Amino acid sequence: MLKQRKIKIGGVHTYLELYGRLFVDLIPRIALIAADKADIHGNLFTGPNTEETPTLVEATAFSNGIVIAQVNELVEELPRVDIPGSWIDLIVVTDEPYAIEALFTRDPQKITATQILMAMMVIKGVYARHGVVSLNHGVGYNTAAIELLLPTYGESLGLKGKICKHWVVNPHPTLIPAIESGWIESIYSFGGEAGMEKYVASRSDIFFTGHDSSLRSNRTLAQIAGQYAVDLFIGSTLQMDRNANSSAIIDTRWTGFGGAPNMGHNPGGRRHASSAWLDLSYYCEDIKKGRKLVVQVLETFWDGKPNFLEKLDAVKMANEVGLESMPVMIYGNDVTHVVTEQGIAYLYKATSIEERRQALAAVAVGTPIATNQTSQTREELRRKGMVAYPEDLQIDVSDAKRSLLAAQSIEDLVKWSGGLYQPPSKFVSKK
Amino acid sequence: MLKQRKIKIGGVHTYLELYGRLFVDLIPRIALIAADKADIHGNLFTGPNTEETPTLVEATAFSNGIVIAQVNELVEELPRVDIPGSWIDLIVVTDEPYAIEALFTRDPQKITATQILMAMMVIKGVYARHGVVSLNHGVGYNTAAIELLLPTYGESLGLKGKICKHWVVNPHPTLIPAIESGWIESIYSFGGEAGMEKYVASRSDIFFTGHDSSLRSNRTLAQIAGQYAVDLFIGSTLQMDRNANSSAIIDTRWTGFGGAPNMGHNPGGRRHASSAWLDLSYYCEDIKKGRKLVVQVLETFWDGKPNFLEKLDAVKMANEVGLESMPVMIYGNDVTHVVTEQGIAYLYKATSIEERRQALAAVAVGTPIATNQTSQTREELRRKGMVAYPEDLQIDVSDAKRSLLAAQSIEDLVKWSGGLYQPPSKFVSKK
Repeated sequence: MLKQRKIKIGGVHTYLELYGRLFVDLIPRIALIAADKADIHGNLFTGPNTEETPTLVEATAFSNGIVIAQVNELVEELPRVDIPGSWIDLIVVTDEPYAIEALFTRDPQKITATQILMAMMVIKGVYARHGVVSLNHGVGYNTAAIELLLPTYGESLGLKGKICKHWVVNPHPTLIPAIESGWIESIYSFGGEAGMEKYVASRSDIFFTGHDSSLRSNRTLAQIAGQYAVDLFIGSTLQMDRNANSSAIIDTRWTGFGGAPNMGHNPGGRRHASSAWLDLSYYCEDIKKGRKLVVQVLETFWDGKPNFLEKLDAVKMANEVGLESMPVMIYGNDVTHVVTEQGIAYLYKATSIEERRQALAAVAVGTPIATNQTSQTREELRRKGMVAYPEDLQIDVSDAKRSLLAAQSIEDLVKWSGGLYQPPSKFVSKK
Repeated sequence: MLKQRKIKIGGVHTYLELYGRLFVDLIPRIALIAADKADIHGNLFTGPNTEETPTLVEATAFSNGIVIAQVNELVEELPRVDIPGSWIDLIVVTDEPYAIEALFTRDPQKITATQILMAMMVIKGVYARHGVVSLNHGVGYNTAAIELLLPTYGESLGLKGKICKHWVVNPHPTLIPAIESGWIESIYSFGGEAGMEKYVASRSDIFFTGHDSSLRSNRTLAQIAGQYAVDLFIGSTLQMDRNANSSAIIDTRWTGFGGAPNMGHNPGGRRHASSAWLDLSYYCEDIKKGRKLVVQVLETFWDGKPNFLEKLDAVKMANEVGLESMPVMIYGNDVTHVVTEQGIAYLYKATSIEERRQALAAVAVGTPIATNQTSQTREELRRKGMVAYPEDLQIDVSDAKRSLLAAQSIEDLVKWSGGLYQPPSKFVSKK
């Protein structure tokens, strides 16, 4: 039995696997959806937040279910049609607009020097080393730091045009400086982001937009792209075990995994090659296969507690509750690189489980998974290229300063956007 | 260099991975598509063959590309809207309708006793043993035989309502007897099948259809379902090596893989459990994971030549041509079961590569991969449950007769459908 305790639960998202199940064992009877506008034929305009709505509607409308759409207003003519009226049964015009939150906005002011150091290591030791051209960034300060270092640190390394050209990512405001500096060729988005509407409309050369210039997002297609079409998935996590299994479900906080599990692995049966994918190729018996890069970023400690543990809280919880499937977010076997403030573990190079564990421990010194590791072992792992510390990457830790960020604040992002990015009021500092 | 030789090339399909790339590194500039009807607003009705059209259009229309639709006719009002007119740039009404072929129709008359024997083994030794509730069937006589045995052999084993309830599959005519016998609860389709229109409309309780009763297919969503939402993928192949790598590319014939590579593997990061998935669970270091069943069906010989070889023709071809990625259809590591006319190899149970090879060889006796195997080894594999021969499954080979099929001919399928299935003329025998 679960001991009574206070648990914060949040961030439950929908994801690829669930979309598939809508047509197999979870066929919906009723779909309740939200849209910006409807016309009198029932056609819907969802604006930038189309997300998974067409998939939910498709599963319901074509299985004799009922689709009820809440809309902010009824208009004569729509800017464009996102979902045809013939798929919709009922329209309800509401008095107040549907709720929307800026979930993917990270204030540059809150990015720490440690996060900047890790971001430098990712850019040099992962993106540049393997030639990562297409990628997905999870949400968080770690990846926001990477985005803000491309036009500064990345530029100084001569990487523009060589890495990070094609993105599958929400319209993160922290991407604006990289876009404006000419780093990015295309961005396909899972959903919209409040405040980014006008900026996105002005960069329809980069973002996917309709004839009306507003973003067209599609979470289902973005997750397919994030699973199969990119060189790299990178994300943060909350806890990792000695085998690199990770979870965002920890003792006092249960966070949803979003699309991470379905995108953060090396998808089987991939048949197209890319340089980065081939750079991690390996032999599966006598047949050579490429590999997707799956990178996890995690500081070794948080609030004085180690984030690297022998056993995940999630596994303990699963055993307590009797879950049939462990709430692991990314399986260790799928992780190719782990980046901490200490260094990078190139896990994909390991030839045994023991070597893999040692490489991980070498970037988590001071945590329970590294207690028995000697400095000689770490030296040997460095020599073999299994582990790289900042000095091995010619990174001077004292360079990891906030001044290296292309934007220091939300206000800076607004400036980079030429005033087109309009941050929600909670991100605007009171003067 | 490739020696000059005559090679039959065919069956190139689009698939999940490619759909993802349309939003990343293969963003289309122009899409040329086909539809049944358009209205004056440019809205399209694709009828049962929607397939991947919405995905192709979405990638093009929202990246400032041009979408040109060929339609059979322009009408006042569409039966339903499959693609909104605001995504289409140009409509061309053609003098003759677009071409469509019945690619998924298999004439029961051509099903052999050997295929029936293999189908019996699949039903008893795979579907019933693991409790397979949701599944995808590839196209071919092997799987057509399974479909036609459910209402007869499957019924006699008391399996109705226990297996094969939810399908991701085209509207195969050979599914009609199982549908009419009450075996099937739902079918989600990649595309339509010529001749099945009226029958599908009459069974909108099973198939996904619009308000107009015609099939709504969506290849993208069906492939997601086939990848992540089903217990089992089963397909035929043309050649297999000793490690169970398989390919439909052989010396004299290069056949496209369709969706097989993207669906025929154990997708990483799956987070929902099912009985069949749990039945194949294994430990990934100290964490238990379920596994998708990936079954390959293949006769040991074809036209006097062995189908099991030390090395795939595809690998030899890749080395000759210098391909960066091997044209393997399904990787051996992903295959859980191989079924031949000799028996079933339960490859997922193997604890070493050598044991895996031995299990495969034990159902391919007489082929080059089994030359050094002794009958003692085979007996041991049977004892360990790594291999099952028909007698181990209590299947009498002499029962494998065509009379066991629920339909013996296309005419029988028409009868089962109450006259609603209308086979294309090439399938109708001349009297």
